[in-house]
Formats: sequence, structure tokens, C-alpha cells
Amino acid sequence: MDDKAMLMIPGPTPVPERALTALGKHPIGHRTGEFSALIGEVNAGLQWLHQTKNDVLTLAASGTGAMEAGIINFLSAGDRVLVGSNGKFGDRWVQVAQAYGLNVEVIDAEWGKPLDPEAFRAALEADTNKEIAAVILTHSETSTGVLNDLGAIVAHIKAHSKALSIVDAVTSLGAYDLKVDELGLDVVGSGSQKGYMIPPGLGFVAVSNKAWDAYERATLPRFYFDLGKYRKTAAKNSTPFTPPINLYFALHAALQMMQDEGLEAIFARHDRLKRATRAAVKAMGLPLFGADECASPAITAVAPATVKAEDVRARMNKKFDIALAGGQDHLKGQIFRIGHLGFVADRDVLTAIGALESVLVELGHDGATPGAGIAAAAAVFKAS
Amino acid sequence: MDDKAMLMIPGPTPVPERALTALGKHPIGHRTGEFSALIGEVNAGLQWLHQTKNDVLTLAASGTGAMEAGIINFLSAGDRVLVGSNGKFGDRWVQVAQAYGLNVEVIDAEWGKPLDPEAFRAALEADTNKEIAAVILTHSETSTGVLNDLGAIVAHIKAHSKALSIVDAVTSLGAYDLKVDELGLDVVGSGSQKGYMIPPGLGFVAVSNKAWDAYERATLPRFYFDLGKYRKTAAKNSTPFTPPINLYFALHAALQMMQDEGLEAIFARHDRLKRATRAAVKAMGLPLFGADECASPAITAVAPATVKAEDVRARMNKKFDIALAGGQDHLKGQIFRIGHLGFVADRDVLTAIGALESVLVELGHDGATPGAGIAAAAAVFKAS
Repeated sequence: MDDKAMLMIPGPTPVPERALTALGKHPIGHRTGEFSALIGEVNAGLQWLHQTKNDVLTLAASGTGAMEAGIINFLSAGDRVLVGSNGKFGDRWVQVAQAYGLNVEVIDAEWGKPLDPEAFRAALEADTNKEIAAVILTHSETSTGVLNDLGAIVAHIKAHSKALSIVDAVTSLGAYDLKVDELGLDVVGSGSQKGYMIPPGLGFVAVSNKAWDAYERATLPRFYFDLGKYRKTAAKNSTPFTPPINLYFALHAALQMMQDEGLEAIFARHDRLKRATRAAVKAMGLPLFGADECASPAITAVAPATVKAEDVRARMNKKFDIALAGGQDHLKGQIFRIGHLGFVADRDVLTAIGALESVLVELGHDGATPGAGIAAAAAVFKAS
Repeated sequence: MDDKAMLMIPGPTPVPERALTALGKHPIGHRTGEFSALIGEVNAGLQWLHQTKNDVLTLAASGTGAMEAGIINFLSAGDRVLVGSNGKFGDRWVQVAQAYGLNVEVIDAEWGKPLDPEAFRAALEADTNKEIAAVILTHSETSTGVLNDLGAIVAHIKAHSKALSIVDAVTSLGAYDLKVDELGLDVVGSGSQKGYMIPPGLGFVAVSNKAWDAYERATLPRFYFDLGKYRKTAAKNSTPFTPPINLYFALHAALQMMQDEGLEAIFARHDRLKRATRAAVKAMGLPLFGADECASPAITAVAPATVKAEDVRARMNKKFDIALAGGQDHLKGQIFRIGHLGFVADRDVLTAIGALESVLVELGHDGATPGAGIAAAAAVFKAS
């Protein structure tokens, strides 16, 4: 059946009709009072979502572009940086930092395990000359569904007193209670096709005053991603280059929906979706990839033993038109990932679990009674 | 009246309903066979539009991002470059080149006048050690409506035998018969909200084999805009980072419409719109900004003497809901610009001229008989 596809991947995430309708409107001039007013409302909404008074700047770019901007605007070639890596995106920030000639020290953890805050404490304490200019972290590691303990790591960075915290919040923003100001995060990057509930094409960077001070000293070359230009124009509800007007329309609609729902309800919903999904997966007799203690509210990774991950994905797709994500890099074929990020309701998780149970029956998985997954999710929903 | 706005600016340009409908569709996964097939068709369409066998790569970025990518991928800090500048966008490429530490020699011309090909010949011939690595040019200077003589300048670059030609075709591609392969252009940048007839958010870069050779030697830092990554994934109908899926949907629809119309018809239409607009402006007794010989097919700049440019724009907007562009930088208040780029029909030009004549009557302009503009445009249409 056409047009029945259901996205349960960590991005693009489902887009509500209100955002799609806004997206499909005819563009207006971006140098008009009408569009300026929209930019003003969008920027206020972004600050609300980030729980910050910092500038939150919008770029025509993917999340990777936003994170690159978050790195190159505040550093100079040769600067020492610590990069946490326990998945594909942590690895990507290592690559970005190296591409720009930073002096990179990697603190890694096995994929599926969280970063160890103590390793950061040790590295920061060992840096007695305070040479470390920044610590670059992935909050929710999309490739594995692991949520790193940002609070603990950032506390060590704060104790260090000099290093900036540069955080990839691509799959945590809008899903997890990320208090940018309370934590004192310096740079926070994200992308539109995630918790924002709109299609890809916009990247976001929140920038603290401490980071702006570093910007003044930073010498890496930049032009299109020069955040100073974006800050200057944002103050006038404008943009330095032609903005993706229609994605702004959609963003405006989606931020309004998020404000109607409220932060507390949004975070509670994602937490509930996570717990229901994990309870169901366990009840289905499938091993979770990653422990409950470090589980992302956006995505649940499963490492099936009795069936092949790619068979599960193929059948979910073919029989029920549900897209799940596969494993990346060396996890290809080893895991599948269920996205429950953004415009996802309790009902959608039940749908995915019901379909997964049906597929497991087909594939001859005998680790659980069919229906046990739905029962486990129902128990979570009853208790929530 | 709501939703009656008409864009006669050089970007965003009007978007056909077919592209808007595609834009507002629910996104699909970008790592699916369905989306790969779409990327394949889009890439073939882009090559057709560029009249090239070169790679044409698509970035999530504005046209400025695409041009920056076109500069930084093929050069190293300290490289000598010639940059032609006779308007805001030429100035911008000077700024980009300087931001990346290139050794910039500017060949300029007064805003409203074309670049002098002889100045390029002289500079290239004086470079007896063949140190000039690239010549960076704006084809259609959006800020003034001047079309530079690319053919003549590129002939001098070819005679030089080493320098790359890096061309901003943002408001010429899809409006002017720009034969990328026949001219032997090395790098051509453009943006989606122009001749492509879709909203902003995508940038495009066409890259020749000679440019790819230079890429291997170039040492400027890059990651998100590293075109090698885009080339590698394009060969597999994929993208290195999450693409703006919905803008791809719209692009796919728009390229199909362009292919249905045909290149010859598209270029003839833009030429006709240009001639009709210029004939009408002259008949209205308004001075054109820039000579007929170097007039852009995308945009006509007018430097009114008897009325104020900003009064014209304000009344066109208020009375008839038609957006015209103003002057930029030192031309602010001196000129207004009529866009006739992309999804613009003969009828639209008549509409704009009729409204302009009406506004001139209101403003007390007495340089022409009301209706003379329409009559002049009609004569062009009759002869075309």
C-alpha cells in the first residue's frame, strides 16, 4: 500500500501534519517584516527548548554542519581537546577535530557502553597547565542508543575551569531534560530531523558567553559557518545568508506544538516510550544492546541472538511498512535500532512492538510467548 | 488579502505547486532504495541542467556555502587567486578567499558595469610563473543585474593553462545557456531558490576532473564541505550526511518540470522576459541600471531619477502585493530590482509592469504615458 510507511528510526523522525502543511506553503521574501517576526518567534522558541538565555543560532546545514560550526568557531589549530567517543558520532567529532588540526586526545568506551566520567576527571586533573581548550561530547549516541552521563562529565569540566564543553545533543534535545544553562554547557549542537519533528536541513548551535569569549581568540578559518555573523544578524531577527525559508515555517509550527505540549510532558513521554520499548524487548526475549542505566530516551538498540537483525528489519519493512534502523560500521548486521524520538506517541510504540512480535513468530524465534511484548509495554503505560 | 504575495525578487523565486506538494510530503528514510533512486534521478537531472558530465554535488547549505565549498576544496592557504568583483557577491568571494588565507588579487569594476575580460588577460599573462591557482568569478551579479562575459574571461584562463575557473552561477544557472563542459568550467556553484524553482536550503557544486586533481593537492581544512565525501557517496546514489529529504523531493519535481520544458525553451523564456522587462522600463521613462549588452536574464535593476526606489518598492508591495528587491550596500535606496528568474511566465512580467505603471502614476512620475510599458513589453512578446 502506498504512503503507509512508518518511521521508527532515529531520523528523519515522523513529521506532524501541521509542520508538513507549513513546509509546503509558498515561500515569502526572507528580508521582510513578516519573516523577521517569524525568526524572532523561532529564536525565542529555540531558547525555550534549550532552557537557555544563550544565543541559539540556526544554520542551513545538517547536524554535522552544526557540530562542525560548534567546534571550529571556538578553537585554533593545535589546541588540545578531549573528545569522548563511544559510537559513530563520537568518532565523527574526532575526525572533525583532526581535520581542523586540533591536538586530539580521545577518551573512548566500547560501543554500547557509556563514557566513564572518571576518565575525564583524570585527564582534566592531569592537565595541570590548563591547556585543554575544550571537551567534545556526544550526549545521546545515536549509533548505539547510549546516553552518556553529561552531568557528571560536565561537573569535571567545570572544576577544570578553562575548557569549553561542546556537546552533540542531536538525539537528546527535545527528548531529554537537557538544561543548558543549569549545566552551564558552552556549545550545544542539534539538527532538525530529530526531536524538532521536522525534516532535515537545519542545524542549531547554542553558544554561551564563555564560548563567545573563546570565539574572539579562535583562529580557525571560517566564513559560511562563522557564528559571529549569525549572532549579529539574529539580534536583528535576520540571517547572514538566505535561510531555508520553508523549513523555518515548519520549525515555527513544530515549536508551537512543543510549547503547547510543554517540556515536562515531552520529556515524560520520551522516558515512557523508552521504558515501554525496553520492557517489551526484554519480554520478547531479545537482548538489549546497552544497559538500562545509560539508555537513550530517543532510541533503543537490540542485539538479537536467535534471529538476524537484518532479517528483522527487512520483514518489518516488507510486511508492516515500518522502518527500523540497522547497525552502523562494525555493528552492521549485529543490532537493529528502534527510534522513539519526536512526534511519537504511546500508540506508535505498541504498533512497532506488535509488528515486531509478529515478525519474530515468522522468523521462528522461540524465546518468548507472542504477545508478551505488548503486555510488558501495557504494564509500563499503566504505571506511568 | 492573505496569500496573494507575488515574488519578483531574485530569490526566493516563485515555486510551482508541483514542487510545493512534493516538498510537503512526509519524509522517507534517506538510506532506503526508494531515496537512492531519487538521488540518482536528481543527479542525472543536475548534470543535464549544467550541460556537463562532471560530478554535480548537492549540499545542505545556501548558495554561499556551495561557493565556499567550491573555493576551499581546491586551494591551499597562500595560493594566489584572482577574484572578479563588480557587486555584492563578487565582494563576498573576496571575503571568503581572504577568510581562508588565500593571496587575493581583486579585479574589480564599478557596480553596474561588467568585468573587463582584458584585465583578466593582462593579469594572467603577467603571471609568467603560472602561480595563479584559480580565478573566481560571478557570472550573473545578483546585486546589480549585470551578466559578466564568462566566455571571454574563461578563454583567457584556458590560455593560462593552470588556473582553475571557479564560477558563481547562482542566478545564471537555469536562466542562461551556461554550457559547463563546452566552456570547460572547473567549479560551478549555485543555490536552490533561484532557477531551480524550489525554496532555499540546497547548494550545488559542479566539479571538473581538473578540479579533482587540484583537490588532491589542496590543504585547506574541511570536513562538512569536503566535496570528496560527497563525490564518493554520490557514486552510490547516497550522501555523506543526512540530506534535506523534502527539498530533494521538491528538486526532483522541479527538475522534471524543467526537463519537460527543455533547456532551449527555458533559456529563450528568460531572454524574452529580460527583453520585455527592459523595453517596458525604458518606455516608462525609468533609467536602467546597467547596459543592455551585459544584462542578466534573471534580474533587471532600475535606477529611478524622478521617484524614490524605496517608494516604488513600498507601494508595489502595499498596493499590489508584489515584492521587488531593493539595492544592497551603497546602492540601498538608489535602485530597485525586478526578478524574472525561475518559475516566471510572460504573464507575470506584464503583471509587474502594469503594477509598476500604476505605482508611477500614484507617485507623480511624469516621464511617460501610462500604458507605454505594457505596450513595449507586448511588442517584445509579439516579436518573440
